[in-house]
Amino acid sequence: MNHTEELTRYTANFVDELAANGLTDVVISPGSRSTPLAMTIAEHPELEHWVVIDERSAAFFALGMAKKKQHAVALVCSSGTAAANYYPAMIEAFYSRVPLVVLTADRPHELRDTGAPQAIDQIRLYGDYAKWFHDMALPQVEGSMLTYARGKASRAVNTAKENNPGPVHLNFPFREPLIPDFSLENVWGARGEKPFYANVDGKRRLRQEQLETLKSTWQSFQRGLIVCGPQTDRAFAAAVTELAAAWQVPILADPLSQIRAGGHSKDVVIESYDTILRSESIRKQLQPDFIIRFGAMPVSKPYLFYVKEHGDIPQFVVENAAGYREPAGNKTEMIYADATWLCRDLASMTDEAFDADWLQTWQQMNQTAKGHLLEPDNTDAVTEGEAVRCLLDVIPDKSSIYVGNSMAVRDLDTFFMSTPKSVEVLANRGANGIDGMVSSGMGAAAASGAVTLLLGDLSFFHDMNGLLAAKHHGLNITILVVNNNGGGIFSFLPQAGHEAHFEALFGTPLDIAFEQVADLYGGTYRQPLGEAALKQALDESYHDHGLSIIEVKTDRTANLEWHRDKWQQIEDALRSDKE
Amino acid sequence: MNHTEELTRYTANFVDELAANGLTDVVISPGSRSTPLAMTIAEHPELEHWVVIDERSAAFFALGMAKKKQHAVALVCSSGTAAANYYPAMIEAFYSRVPLVVLTADRPHELRDTGAPQAIDQIRLYGDYAKWFHDMALPQVEGSMLTYARGKASRAVNTAKENNPGPVHLNFPFREPLIPDFSLENVWGARGEKPFYANVDGKRRLRQEQLETLKSTWQSFQRGLIVCGPQTDRAFAAAVTELAAAWQVPILADPLSQIRAGGHSKDVVIESYDTILRSESIRKQLQPDFIIRFGAMPVSKPYLFYVKEHGDIPQFVVENAAGYREPAGNKTEMIYADATWLCRDLASMTDEAFDADWLQTWQQMNQTAKGHLLEPDNTDAVTEGEAVRCLLDVIPDKSSIYVGNSMAVRDLDTFFMSTPKSVEVLANRGANGIDGMVSSGMGAAAASGAVTLLLGDLSFFHDMNGLLAAKHHGLNITILVVNNNGGGIFSFLPQAGHEAHFEALFGTPLDIAFEQVADLYGGTYRQPLGEAALKQALDESYHDHGLSIIEVKTDRTANLEWHRDKWQQIEDALRSDKE
Repeated sequence: MNHTEELTRYTANFVDELAANGLTDVVISPGSRSTPLAMTIAEHPELEHWVVIDERSAAFFALGMAKKKQHAVALVCSSGTAAANYYPAMIEAFYSRVPLVVLTADRPHELRDTGAPQAIDQIRLYGDYAKWFHDMALPQVEGSMLTYARGKASRAVNTAKENNPGPVHLNFPFREPLIPDFSLENVWGARGEKPFYANVDGKRRLRQEQLETLKSTWQSFQRGLIVCGPQTDRAFAAAVTELAAAWQVPILADPLSQIRAGGHSKDVVIESYDTILRSESIRKQLQPDFIIRFGAMPVSKPYLFYVKEHGDIPQFVVENAAGYREPAGNKTEMIYADATWLCRDLASMTDEAFDADWLQTWQQMNQTAKGHLLEPDNTDAVTEGEAVRCLLDVIPDKSSIYVGNSMAVRDLDTFFMSTPKSVEVLANRGANGIDGMVSSGMGAAAASGAVTLLLGDLSFFHDMNGLLAAKHHGLNITILVVNNNGGGIFSFLPQAGHEAHFEALFGTPLDIAFEQVADLYGGTYRQPLGEAALKQALDESYHDHGLSIIEVKTDRTANLEWHRDKWQQIEDALRSDKE
Repeated sequence: MNHTEELTRYTANFVDELAANGLTDVVISPGSRSTPLAMTIAEHPELEHWVVIDERSAAFFALGMAKKKQHAVALVCSSGTAAANYYPAMIEAFYSRVPLVVLTADRPHELRDTGAPQAIDQIRLYGDYAKWFHDMALPQVEGSMLTYARGKASRAVNTAKENNPGPVHLNFPFREPLIPDFSLENVWGARGEKPFYANVDGKRRLRQEQLETLKSTWQSFQRGLIVCGPQTDRAFAAAVTELAAAWQVPILADPLSQIRAGGHSKDVVIESYDTILRSESIRKQLQPDFIIRFGAMPVSKPYLFYVKEHGDIPQFVVENAAGYREPAGNKTEMIYADATWLCRDLASMTDEAFDADWLQTWQQMNQTAKGHLLEPDNTDAVTEGEAVRCLLDVIPDKSSIYVGNSMAVRDLDTFFMSTPKSVEVLANRGANGIDGMVSSGMGAAAASGAVTLLLGDLSFFHDMNGLLAAKHHGLNITILVVNNNGGGIFSFLPQAGHEAHFEALFGTPLDIAFEQVADLYGGTYRQPLGEAALKQALDESYHDHGLSIIEVKTDRTANLEWHRDKWQQIEDALRSDKE
């Protein structure tokens, strides 16, 4: 069998098996060495491919798409530093548990370690950030090499998805010539009725006696707290709110917990805990007896202070599969069980509730805080918080917010109040970078089409290249840029007191006209003044096709003062409620 | 001693020792955890700092600056994926042997592996691509901890520079509060008269009997070739051209060898070997007896074919310090010796020349090829080759060209003829990526101020964020973008025959208006039509301050035909010369 036929059949069997394992989308960056993979994927009738030129953007695009689809997305790039550009998104995928199948083309062995052009050492290029790495054999069909290729494809998709999902990396050496021949008979090979490794994935579930032991531990307590960090299981919100309602225990729900929005009951959901817990005396007053946390720590820094200050109370952290996410440094009972199943199992065996006064205290404080946070202020300028309020007012049902790190996610935490609308919130909270946000939003938009990306100007700038995807692939997306011309979060930190270096090292004003950026990528641009105009602009953008950029200009200093004033008012109100 | 004083003295001693070791420039990306390093560097009287927001761009900026300065440049970033954005430039620095000192801030040990925000595992983050990695101790001053900090700073700069230069990585855990106190007495600590590790670096040099053995080997031959790949030692060009003139041996000089430009004699320099060796029959005819190559393989692909086809002749490859750069796969005698010293040592002991006819054959062919390559054609359109010719005509003495990969460096190879002007050519030929080129050019411009960046549209797009540095730091740079609206190099490859996928997967037209890009970053923009207008535009740009973008629009198909016609004409001419 000649080289081209071996290349074609080997690659086609691999690619076909990706599809057989339910993978549907591949993000491809152009290159020469990756030609066999790229052309075969483009040719495959069941796979959709998305060409993204900048590999850093490509990887975040795949990340956003995989988050939204809750399924593995594949990436293909050429050899050399192209693959290194995936690293930031790989790390984010690793920590935020997103399944990615990274396929890098490589030079064959005789061109490795020789100084050949565009040949770098790609073996374990991503270190421990790949859940699984395999250096593929050169294309061959003899013996069992086609089943080998299918096996590796199947294992790649499964490994990316199972337990804590994450990125896997397969490295493909290819010799020239690189062009496959799709005119060969039966090019896709022999796909079985089932995937090569047809996984039947069990979830971790506690035995009855383990549940009884937990229950008897908790029965001695009065004041419980359920804390929900970022969650992706779409059945979790209903399960945990039912449990909490039965127990009469408040839920402190992170904006990424998917609990603040949707059709389930929200009586026990405390959205404003970040605001409530800003006061040290209130943190002291709200002494819990135990805390059950589902998933990672919430974004709220006051909550972190709160658990550290109450570090001696029993804390339970639930992990679906594995992990030790406990940054407060508190002694913790780790519960390894699927969160949704655990809630249902516990709810089914609950016979009495906890202290109802404790729940009411939280509910009253939450109402007081919400009242102040939602209070209209009569200035023309739209503050960062008001921008988020406007967004949540007009965002359509059944849509998603992809939220940037730094200030954007914190503003969302403060102002995202419970809503019956179905609004999924996505973010890159694995490593909390400001990089790759535009592409992450684009990937989610490519998956679902009803996405609003909320982010700050530095984060927008960091990945402006990501805008090209909207233009190339005709994506519908609304980008709400809160532009405080620099690193707004630093105004909240002690660095702000050091005028000699502040603007140059931390403030870092961009002075970039985002209207021109919109123009460059064929997007519409709006800069509404005032809340009504912002709501109208958002509303219009949801009826537009293509890329809509809405810019809200704010002032870092005014924003800081507005937040501080608001928090002080609320602290005063919470105290006077109590008196 | 309190936390702030320990933080301040430890960091200040470290930073002061960087300066004591001759490091002058630090590229800083904004972040919170890196505050101690960033503020201390900004405060240090001998260090210049450059704030670059996008860490990927920042690392390439440092790379370009280090290449131009031929000295280590430091990088500072915060914890998290910020550091991962350095990876592409780290890999390029590793392979192209550029000294970088990468300083990443990290969370302290109690926040590692806990799910703390913006905390990723940064231990050996760059794998084997860091020449040296050290995880620093937490700031302390007791015992020997200040000398420890000084020792590590000194070793970092030395290790980056010595032998094959490359990147080193120090990871700094910092606890809050992060603000140093520069009002402390004697904050910079006790700098010694010499650096902490005052290296006296020997270079590798052959013993007399080793030189005699080589000489006696070569004496049996008639037809020698000296091949010079990329070089940075500024004394090398004079040394090697003197040796070659004494030997009467042609030098095939890569555009990055620094041999084509400058005041040394160029009688024996063959610039057009890439063009000459395109014909298989001419490659066969030009049978050498031995080849001595200095440094990495040249960019020329015909040269690679040539050495593979003559794979049985003795080949000698000179490496200054270490390496096995022999992608042709030929049996090779590796000579580990400083290239400049070796040339001088050999020249001093030479008593007779090699075959003068062989040199003349090459010289005549070179003249014929150059004649055709420099021949004006009377069309209005500027081809990619003509753009390079115009650039070399008008580029000022004592300046640098930073050239992009893919087509740009190949066009430069073809059209960069010998010139007495001092023009240094820089490129990222370690991994040959199209990424980071704008920032690489900006870093070189920050180092010297007389830089022309020559690159294609995809490479320009890949690092448009790099343009912000020109605006922020008021850099003077001319960017000549040869825009063929996509991946022009693929038109030369077999992929071009596959219409079904070519434009989507390989051609990848950007359809971006670079005039708007220039406007976005406050640059001037020119799109000259015709060679005279292009020369005038370049000339004007050299008198401007700030960022000048000159766009030459070409057509991929016309470019391919132009190149193929030219090569055919030259092959015909070379044959008829011979007849």
